Amino acid sequence: MSIITGYSTHDIRFPTSLSGDGTDAMNTDCNYSAAYVILNTTPNADSNAAASDTLKGFGMTFTIGKGNDIVIEAIKQLSDKLVGMPIESLFSDMGAMWELLTSDSQLRWIGPEKGVIHLATGAVANAVWDMYARSRNKPLWKLIVDMTPEEIVKCSSLKYLSDALTPEEAVQMLHERQSTKTEREKRALQEGLRAYSTSVGWMGYTTDKVQRLTKEALDLGFNHFKLKVGVSVDDDLARAKVIRDIIDDPQYQNKDKRVHAKTIEGKNAGPTGNVLMIDANQVWDVEEAIAYVKKLEQCKPWFIEEPTMPDDVLGHARIRKGLKDIGIGVATGEHCANRVLFKQLLQAGAIDVLQIDACRLAGVNECLAVMLLAAKFGVPVCPHAGGVGLCEYVVHLSMIDFISIAPTFDRNVVEWVDHLHEHFKYPVSVNSHGRYNAPLDKSCGYSIEMHQESIEKYTYPDGSYWKYEHPTIISKLQEGRRYV
Amino acid sequence: MSIITGYSTHDIRFPTSLSGDGTDAMNTDCNYSAAYVILNTTPNADSNAAASDTLKGFGMTFTIGKGNDIVIEAIKQLSDKLVGMPIESLFSDMGAMWELLTSDSQLRWIGPEKGVIHLATGAVANAVWDMYARSRNKPLWKLIVDMTPEEIVKCSSLKYLSDALTPEEAVQMLHERQSTKTEREKRALQEGLRAYSTSVGWMGYTTDKVQRLTKEALDLGFNHFKLKVGVSVDDDLARAKVIRDIIDDPQYQNKDKRVHAKTIEGKNAGPTGNVLMIDANQVWDVEEAIAYVKKLEQCKPWFIEEPTMPDDVLGHARIRKGLKDIGIGVATGEHCANRVLFKQLLQAGAIDVLQIDACRLAGVNECLAVMLLAAKFGVPVCPHAGGVGLCEYVVHLSMIDFISIAPTFDRNVVEWVDHLHEHFKYPVSVNSHGRYNAPLDKSCGYSIEMHQESIEKYTYPDGSYWKYEHPTIISKLQEGRRYV
Repeated sequence: MSIITGYSTHDIRFPTSLSGDGTDAMNTDCNYSAAYVILNTTPNADSNAAASDTLKGFGMTFTIGKGNDIVIEAIKQLSDKLVGMPIESLFSDMGAMWELLTSDSQLRWIGPEKGVIHLATGAVANAVWDMYARSRNKPLWKLIVDMTPEEIVKCSSLKYLSDALTPEEAVQMLHERQSTKTEREKRALQEGLRAYSTSVGWMGYTTDKVQRLTKEALDLGFNHFKLKVGVSVDDDLARAKVIRDIIDDPQYQNKDKRVHAKTIEGKNAGPTGNVLMIDANQVWDVEEAIAYVKKLEQCKPWFIEEPTMPDDVLGHARIRKGLKDIGIGVATGEHCANRVLFKQLLQAGAIDVLQIDACRLAGVNECLAVMLLAAKFGVPVCPHAGGVGLCEYVVHLSMIDFISIAPTFDRNVVEWVDHLHEHFKYPVSVNSHGRYNAPLDKSCGYSIEMHQESIEKYTYPDGSYWKYEHPTIISKLQEGRRYV
Repeated sequence: MSIITGYSTHDIRFPTSLSGDGTDAMNTDCNYSAAYVILNTTPNADSNAAASDTLKGFGMTFTIGKGNDIVIEAIKQLSDKLVGMPIESLFSDMGAMWELLTSDSQLRWIGPEKGVIHLATGAVANAVWDMYARSRNKPLWKLIVDMTPEEIVKCSSLKYLSDALTPEEAVQMLHERQSTKTEREKRALQEGLRAYSTSVGWMGYTTDKVQRLTKEALDLGFNHFKLKVGVSVDDDLARAKVIRDIIDDPQYQNKDKRVHAKTIEGKNAGPTGNVLMIDANQVWDVEEAIAYVKKLEQCKPWFIEEPTMPDDVLGHARIRKGLKDIGIGVATGEHCANRVLFKQLLQAGAIDVLQIDACRLAGVNECLAVMLLAAKFGVPVCPHAGGVGLCEYVVHLSMIDFISIAPTFDRNVVEWVDHLHEHFKYPVSVNSHGRYNAPLDKSCGYSIEMHQESIEKYTYPDGSYWKYEHPTIISKLQEGRRYV
């Protein structure tokens, strides 16, 4: 039987701040980064199993540059806990594996279950899940949809959730979806999963660029588009008008009847059924959010994303109530620290759309718990993606959600950004209808393995890109540091 | 004019796990630790001011061992932002100083405003406050109570709070307290601030030890006592009975009439007016907390502290409602990640007692904001202390609260643990009535400067204690690490 013998970590940063990609009202200079871990195994002495000789687990968490090294330090301390563990004993109780990572009484203090230590837990837990799926020759999503309801619930992080969802209720919910599971799996493989494009409307983009990208996205089959707002009402209205003028043009009629019929409330639908969403990235106080978004009513967005501080459950509930009249919903989640905050957002009726993040939540275990909660409360899960690696991750989560968990999938739509996929060995892709293709490669695991050349080139600060191709940037980034 | 020229950081860990001090249901092996920073300044070339030649700022955040190094990595990256800054320009707008530390768009991603990066911000911001107070030859509390209401509000972190408290309301509240400020300052200097003892009831202690420590604490003048609970009802009841039997003995009649009359609701008062509190350190789910605490009704505690996950605002509200009938209140705060969570705890009516932590909140600025919020909602602030350095910090906060902010102070009581004070240059102390003495030394700043010998001895892993006196422990701590 193979054990985990050690690990390596890699601080990988891409210079995305140079292009203005990923720019919004809060995040003005993102270098999309991966705090990346590889778990190594070898068969132990008494094993004859040649197949597991080279089994590895790949995991990462996403950051936007500085601080990636801090997360890596946390990844090391969590990975230490796995060294020496027989992999099959981890796989046999993935819930216990998650407990092992999150219950260290000393490390828990610097969370608990939030921020750096939780982001790091996401990377490490996902690496174990990746290894588990590879060991079974299945993509991660398939590993999980093939589990029994009891098995899925056993590896979901349900601690602190029982006032909203008990394990028994969760099992019951999953059982109700069992008989139609195969049919949904078939459909997902045929059709893919509906995606939306964030690439059209970053804050740093000119209206010309927004116009060009929106048309391109429509031609690629997308019918949901997101625009960053929150710095200036006039500028927001101007860029929104560019998008609306195009997506409301009858030549771009949305042919996806389900979307047209169900995801949009009457007056915000627009004539073609194409959908606009807006995203403020937390810039407002609560009442300020309501007042500002009311000024954007004519943009007819489906929802306002991250109107205020992500921890503010009651604030989101207040904003949702304040915008109900004008038919604009509330979405949040990419900065939602853990399942307990999601539980409250659902209990308080604070959100119309739940946007989980595959690594801000502590890996697959906690994502399962949150998808189960969302199903209980009837709120669609539309994962946060983009950055680097997030699209690769979340397609697996949405496959699981669609096939095994969600009561309906009419409103669910997965964020898509066409950046940096070339660095992954099993890059995710969208089809000609603007829908995510299901990952099918039996060796893909959780799809997060990067090419060795990419790791080497973009390792910070010693990779060839940062050391040789970009000396100016690196010296600028380092000049502030005067550690004595 | 002097500028910040650089800084040093120190990973300082005390081997408190050896004694069972600090043990509770969640934290079973604490090594009280300080992620410690010293900001250095020199006068710049055109300055003649010899007085500021040696001005330094000392700050730390508290952890319980592992992960202290992760926090230090974050402290370094935040301190970098201060290097080169003229100190007087920092002091002239401490609100802007705090913004500088918390608004880095890349570092914000790995919070935001929570966990490692927020703990680190607490250490760095507090170091600047320490330096500011020293530069004015005043203890930190005195520096702040001498400010105008407008000045206090200007350096309070009020972003995201305006739906509960606007800056204008805060100024107004402080103005209402102005005319009686001097009188309260005089009283605080004469009487000190009421403290409570947590040292009597750690989870690892035998009933004999609990008995001995309770008597000692009564003899020292304490009349509030805290007991750790949550592992076993029988054990909790047994240890609670030991304490109640002693504190209810007429020979220990509490002579502080204000406490007896006002802090305790009728049936829970006990015959002598001495007060028991219980603390579960987050072990329960919401309904489980209610059911468990009901079984402890006969202990007659003032409140249950940390009944569940600290992020669970709605859960705390539910628990408070569930325990109202039996007269047991709810307290939380030592793990409350930031002011936005405190705002919601207050808005939801979830707590009877607010327990701020001087470094889990991001320094003095955010503590001021939370004390202002608490005053608005009429909830007493009883700071979390103990560990290492927390008592030194919080006496300043409670001095500010008592003199400048809180509408009443009848229920306020400051946690006291008599550990590790000997490592500080200006150690805090309690008087013979079990009350904190106000820090008076004009050079004490925020009272957090440690003796150089303590830093050197307990630096981890290379200080003399860890390297030479405790080789067994260190090798045990490191054996898990197999980084490749």
